[in-house]
Amino acid sequence: MTKRTAPPKIPPAGAAALIAAGRAFHARGWVPATAGNFSIRLDAKALAVTTSGRHKGELGKADFMRVDLDGRALDAGKRASAETLLHCQLYRHAGGIGAVLHTHSPASTVLSRTHDSIRLEGYELLKIFEGIRTHETAVEVPVFENDQDIARLSRVVDAHMKTGKVPHAYLIRGHGLYAWGRTVDEARHRVEALEFLFECELYERLSKSTGDRP
Amino acid sequence: MTKRTAPPKIPPAGAAALIAAGRAFHARGWVPATAGNFSIRLDAKALAVTTSGRHKGELGKADFMRVDLDGRALDAGKRASAETLLHCQLYRHAGGIGAVLHTHSPASTVLSRTHDSIRLEGYELLKIFEGIRTHETAVEVPVFENDQDIARLSRVVDAHMKTGKVPHAYLIRGHGLYAWGRTVDEARHRVEALEFLFECELYERLSKSTGDRP
Amino acid sequence: MTKRTAPPKIPPAGAAALIAAGRAFHARGWVPATAGNFSIRLDAKALAVTTSGRHKGELGKADFMRVDLDGRALDAGKRASAETLLHCQLYRHAGGIGAVLHTHSPASTVLSRTHDSIRLEGYELLKIFEGIRTHETAVEVPVFENDQDIARLSRVVDAHMKTGKVPHAYLIRGHGLYAWGRTVDEARHRVEALEFLFECELYERLSKSTGDRP
Amino acid sequence: MTKRTAPPKIPPAGAAALIAAGRAFHARGWVPATAGNFSIRLDAKALAVTTSGRHKGELGKADFMRVDLDGRALDAGKRASAETLLHCQLYRHAGGIGAVLHTHSPASTVLSRTHDSIRLEGYELLKIFEGIRTHETAVEVPVFENDQDIARLSRVVDAHMKTGKVPHAYLIRGHGLYAWGRTVDEARHRVEALEFLFECELYERLSKSTGDRP
Repeated sequence: MTKRTAPPKIPPAGAAALIAAGRAFHARGWVPATAGNFSIRLDAKALAVTTSGRHKGELGKADFMRVDLDGRALDAGKRASAETLLHCQLYRHAGGIGAVLHTHSPASTVLSRTHDSIRLEGYELLKIFEGIRTHETAVEVPVFENDQDIARLSRVVDAHMKTGKVPHAYLIRGHGLYAWGRTVDEARHRVEALEFLFECELYERLSKSTGDRP
Repeated sequence: MTKRTAPPKIPPAGAAALIAAGRAFHARGWVPATAGNFSIRLDAKALAVTTSGRHKGELGKADFMRVDLDGRALDAGKRASAETLLHCQLYRHAGGIGAVLHTHSPASTVLSRTHDSIRLEGYELLKIFEGIRTHETAVEVPVFENDQDIARLSRVVDAHMKTGKVPHAYLIRGHGLYAWGRTVDEARHRVEALEFLFECELYERLSKSTGDRP
Repeated sequence: MTKRTAPPKIPPAGAAALIAAGRAFHARGWVPATAGNFSIRLDAKALAVTTSGRHKGELGKADFMRVDLDGRALDAGKRASAETLLHCQLYRHAGGIGAVLHTHSPASTVLSRTHDSIRLEGYELLKIFEGIRTHETAVEVPVFENDQDIARLSRVVDAHMKTGKVPHAYLIRGHGLYAWGRTVDEARHRVEALEFLFECELYERLSKSTGDRP
Repeated sequence: MTKRTAPPKIPPAGAAALIAAGRAFHARGWVPATAGNFSIRLDAKALAVTTSGRHKGELGKADFMRVDLDGRALDAGKRASAETLLHCQLYRHAGGIGAVLHTHSPASTVLSRTHDSIRLEGYELLKIFEGIRTHETAVEVPVFENDQDIARLSRVVDAHMKTGKVPHAYLIRGHGLYAWGRTVDEARHRVEALEFLFECELYERLSKSTGDRP
């Protein structure tokens, strides 16, 4: 009888998947301190995102809140992660995106500080991305300048995506990785694949510089 | 009374050993995302292999299926890992092979991209391989070009092995490691030994380049 | 009826937080052997600190003792960590400090041996420190010379802080990191952030040296 | 009434401490495959040592056996680790040694291949060794040539020790670390300290080579 006005409740399975992702990422050193933030889409108009300042390796059910696609809080008394607008940008951009994971790893941070984009070429693992069926390809992960004005940063990301160059993931300089997928699992697999590839690239750049090529 | 027509059931202990191997490998970063695939021999004509697209750190009993030695599915409704034919090649090649483990590590990936084979020499750990009783030896781990045509790639591997140069393990460029043994335990020990040695080689190549020799 | 003469009991939640921090740090390799020591403030005049020679990854409730702000034992029969005076210096210096964590990591140890201070600039994670709201800043982590005379070392640290250059954390050469916060959680987050940043800096210094800049 | 002829039983607490050490070392990658072996002294004439070919991360109570100080099996039907004589040498050399741990890490393996001894200088963690009270010292960890003739290798180690240059620990080239202590805990702390220091040295050698000194 009640007309739907409230956004959907946060599905326990979705929260559990984000909690598990956080624990796994923390064990690998990809969400130090209170870094990172995670979200899932609730419906066409709302998402659930981690609240501000929580340690991502120790999330509990109470550490999520609902916001609309413009980043406005739908749950009273909670404060969303500062970077919620970057999550909103992705959900608005593509209806198929169901989960967004933002992580910080040493490899991605180091690479992002000295490159304007990270070219990943010839790796079998690139097949983790939609539409990629062969290692004989390259994926260019863009690096955006960090900006404390998240609304402005989200517009820069959005403008880049609207040029048609839709990245599979992106980095923010000195800051970290944004990756997404239809589900938390898919997004998590992409984080794992990208962090693996960034680690390879970091070693390769160190090795390359030494002339150790056969 | 029943004539044996069906392949043997997958032994629970065998599945459990592969599940445990997957968890251990994931903790070390050797099976990121859905990378890797594992199998055990069931009998002279069949093997059990991980189904397609599963995360190897979170395998369950339902994530295996039976295929014959030509890679044909023996269980309806399941899809085998794309690389099943590489497992089949090994089981056909040597009756003594009871388990095959395919992993992806940063060290093996980086080395495989810049070398045509990895020479491992003088390490005590080489004694993990059959027939090796001393560190005063060298093992050459071949690197095959990656190929999305797995049937073709498996023929390249097979042809290499038929020349008599039977490797103890092999790498696929930018892709990962194949190792095997009589049992899951033996195969797992070889993966651990090889990943250790590849890590040593990666550090040594970085160090060597700097002239830091006494 | 009893006049308060004894210091407060060690709060079980505080001890539990330090025990958990130790386990987490050991898993990351930041408290090898019996290295490191941890403390919490009990009140204006006393703190609880880990007893001497315990493995920080395996702390139990009995591995803490009370000392006053001059480092004098308040619990008979227990011996405090040798470096207790460095904890005392911090608690005396600022009433807002509620927890101090001292760790040893390879990255911080290596950097501390070759630099007189570690400049951390442009990282998003710097926002973990009080009063920092943007990545567009730099934090200078001072490196003090190691000294087995801890009373003397604590005076050097104190003199540095009294010049007005209050660091967010400090290193002791070839020895490790001191970080603090209002709570154990806050101090732990800062350790995680700093260790992350030191790891980035270590990679960056290795990479920089090779000319691998775009 | 029975005259004591049999060696003491293996104390459950000692076996448990070795089992726990193996699990912890394996999590850090220091006992890959079936590498490594561990022992405890039983009395003046006997020790308990890991049986041959077991994975040190998965030891059980049955994976230990008793041998005399000349390496002769005291338990029928079990085969001791090939390197048992190196353990015996240490127990014969010093009555105060109660536990010996042999591990394989990438850092120690890489360093041992290119150096004849590893000089560890100026580290706070050196205080983990007996008789060391300050970081203002250096410890020289000798590297012995690997030898499949363990009796001969143990005589080389013994001769070195008899010259008066008793090391705190030693490496075997391309093979691994031997460390010891009065108890399993003490030996384990030394392994952790040494592996930490070898990791520091590995980074420092890589860094040094690049001229990145202030």
